[in-house]
Amino acid sequence: MKIGVDLMGGDYAPDVVLQGIQLAVNEIPEHISLVLYGSIPSGTQAIFNHKSIEWVESPEVVGMTDHPTRVLATKPKSSLVMGITDMKNGRIDGFCSAGNTGALLVAGMYIVNAIPGVIRPCIASLVPEINGATGLILDIGANADCKPDVLYQFAILGSLYAQKVLNINKPRVALLNIGEEEEKGNLLAQASYRLLKESHEIHFTGNVEGRDLFTGKADVIVCDGFTGNVVLKQAEAMYTLFKKREVHDDFLDRFNYELYGGTPVLGINGNIIIGHGNSSPLAIKNMIKHTIEVADSNLQQHFKNAFKP
Amino acid sequence: MKIGVDLMGGDYAPDVVLQGIQLAVNEIPEHISLVLYGSIPSGTQAIFNHKSIEWVESPEVVGMTDHPTRVLATKPKSSLVMGITDMKNGRIDGFCSAGNTGALLVAGMYIVNAIPGVIRPCIASLVPEINGATGLILDIGANADCKPDVLYQFAILGSLYAQKVLNINKPRVALLNIGEEEEKGNLLAQASYRLLKESHEIHFTGNVEGRDLFTGKADVIVCDGFTGNVVLKQAEAMYTLFKKREVHDDFLDRFNYELYGGTPVLGINGNIIIGHGNSSPLAIKNMIKHTIEVADSNLQQHFKNAFKP
Repeated sequence: MKIGVDLMGGDYAPDVVLQGIQLAVNEIPEHISLVLYGSIPSGTQAIFNHKSIEWVESPEVVGMTDHPTRVLATKPKSSLVMGITDMKNGRIDGFCSAGNTGALLVAGMYIVNAIPGVIRPCIASLVPEINGATGLILDIGANADCKPDVLYQFAILGSLYAQKVLNINKPRVALLNIGEEEEKGNLLAQASYRLLKESHEIHFTGNVEGRDLFTGKADVIVCDGFTGNVVLKQAEAMYTLFKKREVHDDFLDRFNYELYGGTPVLGINGNIIIGHGNSSPLAIKNMIKHTIEVADSNLQQHFKNAFKP
Repeated sequence: MKIGVDLMGGDYAPDVVLQGIQLAVNEIPEHISLVLYGSIPSGTQAIFNHKSIEWVESPEVVGMTDHPTRVLATKPKSSLVMGITDMKNGRIDGFCSAGNTGALLVAGMYIVNAIPGVIRPCIASLVPEINGATGLILDIGANADCKPDVLYQFAILGSLYAQKVLNINKPRVALLNIGEEEEKGNLLAQASYRLLKESHEIHFTGNVEGRDLFTGKADVIVCDGFTGNVVLKQAEAMYTLFKKREVHDDFLDRFNYELYGGTPVLGINGNIIIGHGNSSPLAIKNMIKHTIEVADSNLQQHFKNAFKP
């Protein structure tokens, strides 16, 4: 199995990405090769001689402020575009990058395309739960405006991810809402509830509220990308407040995004994992390992079966 | 000045409400009388002899699970309905209750009515900021679905509240969004941004994100009631996590809702403050003091001037 890594993605690329790769090569299984996309910084050639490392020279770089929809046309020789194109052509089995999130999404959508039947691919985030488990919230920003059928599909995507990657047998799927009762919420939540409760494809357990995000009340929390993005950033701010006060325990420490390394794009014909822009070497290592896990899970095939017309 | 207090509102009414009133009577200025709506529990008659206390017998009680829109018709002799009716008739200058939020809102809307020109009254919450200041977020749940002109009005309501009650000279008003740039967000946020940036009535400072809620980046944060409710409940959950770990400091302790006592309904022809259902005596005391502050600020008149056709 080959996993592509964007050497040029992230605020501190390529140096920090290379450091992360050096951590990763010592931990990944024998049968995995990493394919690095980018330019070799001088003085770091040694890593490229590692038996598990291949390298694809890409002369262009997508910056964090590049407009996502223009990247395909203006920077076809960038590490990001070349990597995702190689994934489409079957040369690699997954691709990860701590680069421009919007550009990664657009490249995912337009180079490898959505899985047939998926209306809107989305981005999910892993969330720590107070009982020690790990849950999933989606969408966290790819789709600011959603319709009920789109939220319904997020529930299926999230439920399959929870089964196949998080190994949760019968994931409890909940809708993020502003009350527990069925009739609560905005028009989107009300209509989505009606769709979800009729579903035989997922195990829908009802609404959860803002206070329930980390309580383990659900394994998969579904919401539009606007709400998901706001609550995720609020959770990051909370973690920072704890860190500044040097409060640590098993639960709180699991809010450290470095442990997860990245968030999966769900619903496209390929495994793309997006890392935090200011990823540390540890975060890069875990982004690579997460990409291997997702590629190993055969998630795409499960998605294709679920959305087969 | 007379302030109405709902003796029967809250999970632990009337006992805890009475305890809060006993705390309050020792702290409120001479010229304020409290008018209590409800039934006198046996053994507590003493408080009703206090020179600053009046009492209005109300035989019916609105429960926490009563359907808000049915209360006006089914419980006209409840403390909640009688209190708000007295406010409409000018017998009291403000009314506070830790009771059924939905019923308070509906009673506010249908008994005292919205201020002419206000499309949708809303509920605001005070938020502690890391720099020691206090800000405001609105709406926090009265309007799950909003249009851009409604959000624009929330900005005016919040800005006036910040000026007249929080004594902030030129409140910085921001839009809760999922990015800093103007073009970010869902359709509602994008359209609201365009309205807000053209405004001469408020000092609009752009977007804030989920991570900025408590950083003091803005004095007034505007959002739809769905998003506001989710983030507020998430903030309450955060405060609980800190409390459970016995982490205290000046900033965190200000997340204790008991210190604020209640959230104002903004945009109706009267001063209604809604307390937390499980209010403690301290919270009830501060709810009463907050209601006095709001009534003292002449906020309604400022609203009427701002929305005058």
